[in-house]
Amino acid sequence: MLITLTTDFGLKDPYQGAMKGAILSVNPDAGIVDITHLVSPGEVLEGAFVLLESYGFFPKGTIHAGVVDPGVGGARRPILVETERFFFVGPDNGLFSLVLRNEKVKRVVLLTKDKYFRSEVSKTFHGRDIFGPVAAHLSLGVNPSAFGVEINDILEISLPEPSRGKGVITGEVIYIDSFGNIITNVNGSDALSLGDDACVEFHGIEIEGLKRTYSDAANGSALALISSFGFLEIAVNSGDAGRIFNARVGDKVLLRAKG
Amino acid sequence: MLITLTTDFGLKDPYQGAMKGAILSVNPDAGIVDITHLVSPGEVLEGAFVLLESYGFFPKGTIHAGVVDPGVGGARRPILVETERFFFVGPDNGLFSLVLRNEKVKRVVLLTKDKYFRSEVSKTFHGRDIFGPVAAHLSLGVNPSAFGVEINDILEISLPEPSRGKGVITGEVIYIDSFGNIITNVNGSDALSLGDDACVEFHGIEIEGLKRTYSDAANGSALALISSFGFLEIAVNSGDAGRIFNARVGDKVLLRAKG
Amino acid sequence: MLITLTTDFGLKDPYQGAMKGAILSVNPDAGIVDITHLVSPGEVLEGAFVLLESYGFFPKGTIHAGVVDPGVGGARRPILVETERFFFVGPDNGLFSLVLRNEKVKRVVLLTKDKYFRSEVSKTFHGRDIFGPVAAHLSLGVNPSAFGVEINDILEISLPEPSRGKGVITGEVIYIDSFGNIITNVNGSDALSLGDDACVEFHGIEIEGLKRTYSDAANGSALALISSFGFLEIAVNSGDAGRIFNARVGDKVLLRAKG
Repeated sequence: MLITLTTDFGLKDPYQGAMKGAILSVNPDAGIVDITHLVSPGEVLEGAFVLLESYGFFPKGTIHAGVVDPGVGGARRPILVETERFFFVGPDNGLFSLVLRNEKVKRVVLLTKDKYFRSEVSKTFHGRDIFGPVAAHLSLGVNPSAFGVEINDILEISLPEPSRGKGVITGEVIYIDSFGNIITNVNGSDALSLGDDACVEFHGIEIEGLKRTYSDAANGSALALISSFGFLEIAVNSGDAGRIFNARVGDKVLLRAKG
Repeated sequence: MLITLTTDFGLKDPYQGAMKGAILSVNPDAGIVDITHLVSPGEVLEGAFVLLESYGFFPKGTIHAGVVDPGVGGARRPILVETERFFFVGPDNGLFSLVLRNEKVKRVVLLTKDKYFRSEVSKTFHGRDIFGPVAAHLSLGVNPSAFGVEINDILEISLPEPSRGKGVITGEVIYIDSFGNIITNVNGSDALSLGDDACVEFHGIEIEGLKRTYSDAANGSALALISSFGFLEIAVNSGDAGRIFNARVGDKVLLRAKG
Repeated sequence: MLITLTTDFGLKDPYQGAMKGAILSVNPDAGIVDITHLVSPGEVLEGAFVLLESYGFFPKGTIHAGVVDPGVGGARRPILVETERFFFVGPDNGLFSLVLRNEKVKRVVLLTKDKYFRSEVSKTFHGRDIFGPVAAHLSLGVNPSAFGVEINDILEISLPEPSRGKGVITGEVIYIDSFGNIITNVNGSDALSLGDDACVEFHGIEIEGLKRTYSDAANGSALALISSFGFLEIAVNSGDAGRIFNARVGDKVLLRAKG
């Protein structure tokens, strides 16, 4: 059974290694896959977005453990969510809320049964002491309801929503990737409803039409396209759009139908 | 059988991939787990600390290969250490010396049997040519004593020790993690022996009392707590204490009992 | 069956996780090994070099998936190359051309059979939608010729070649690793043909003789040696030669026989 990890632990410190050790101590045959350990520290919405863009490509039954957990050891609840296709284990702070809009939730369990935790539970490292071991026991076939009590709510956070006018969509930047591609909150199908000759305005620059891939623009030229994850994206062919535009998360993007 | 890797190879170069290939060429079923490849180049004590904080969470029988090896190809000895719970393979330069204080050593073997090495052994990459293949053969069940001759000593390096006065402990910073948490050499139980209302002095700032978790301090406020690994730690709730304090490894920390 | 990944996807974004998910959705038992995801964005020759220095250490039958693919979705062809020892899957943009000089090519297949692709194929992420799934089906034993039609050519790119005069070789820097070691295009055996007392000139500095390992030079001193991958390398014992020399890929290196 596969267990994926999405955390802000970084790759230099002992944290992700210790969490993997804690998982493998429970189930030495667990197949652990790193989604990322480089979520910006404590940035729950960023972690939720990275999960959103990767979780669904894994096989049915995969256990997604997510630990971006600035409230660790405080009032926030440790949870397990079972959906029709997957399991999610982590803090109830919104980390799974983008993903769960796409999934049919079967149950949410508050993790209370400490026999599935590490024997000593610290106040500051629940990835190693709670979420890793719970994911590992789950991968061994333990019934989700054995981990605690069912609850009916989870904390939700959401991406900002674009606003629509007549022939105009105003969105904003939600993520800038390592290539410098600027990903906005404008849904691909919404964007295309304005026509693939629509014009994107960003930082005072006008970009004409929606292209299909990077090389549809000249080398070094800006273009707009629908990203492989289905959002309107601003890029520069063979260049770093994020740096060239000096883009920041939250910057406004305007999409306007032609004529 | 699990083989963990703790190196300073970085994640960009072909080195860690080549070492994994060399392991899998000997044992294609080896379960390889990265602890880290981002130890600062040649920083043996840093590597020893990262190992100390992660190795013990893995299952009994795990083989920990560590390669932070500035003396590669020179006089330093390649070794295999068997303890009651684990195996350690790497250079005899102190990399395992923090870990081995916690472990019951059964034997130390100087690696001399080149039939367990790669067929060509370079002078500069023993991770790929010696330590990886030896770890892989070990994971196939080769007896530790088959790899060479038993020796009775290993090179030891140590963390600096705090000094104690009446109601006062003077320690220093030994590690700053990616969150900016400042980890000191003051043992948690020693710190708590001064009372959980003890006062921490760092860079001229006084921090009152030992908290249990980050969110016990106000957002953006400094706090002291016992880290999940058992050392006195200075942190800032939702902030980067290392940067805020401009902290460096070696900086002094004073802990003083109240009143 | 092992599948290695060499990409420029970075480790922060959802891309490498999504590609792994796509592989595991086809073959949940695939053994995925990261060579690197930190090739500089779009730098095909750099990716080719990292593959060259790592692919050969993996067991026979390993599938090497490489995705440094600035032309994704454009005219460049998706291919599968079968050699006597390995499989290579990725874009036909030269990424495999250094490696293939060492390998006996059995066939090159243009990937056309979309039943082996993900059900939806984006224009900008063929790692997830084509190369990952094809590698996964290959790991399940699908015959290479089932993936498309055989072709007879692949695009080749090459490292710059050193020039030779009488007792002199003029080469250049092709890679600088994370330790700061400066790797040149001068073949080790060519370099040694000038004698191990040959003199290296770099950035106006003369370095006498070829050493065997880093610690053969004094701490902080520059040295030349044959790297573990067989190229002439300039290093500084316990130092970062790349930074000290302010070296750049393309900088000239002169090797001159003594006397």
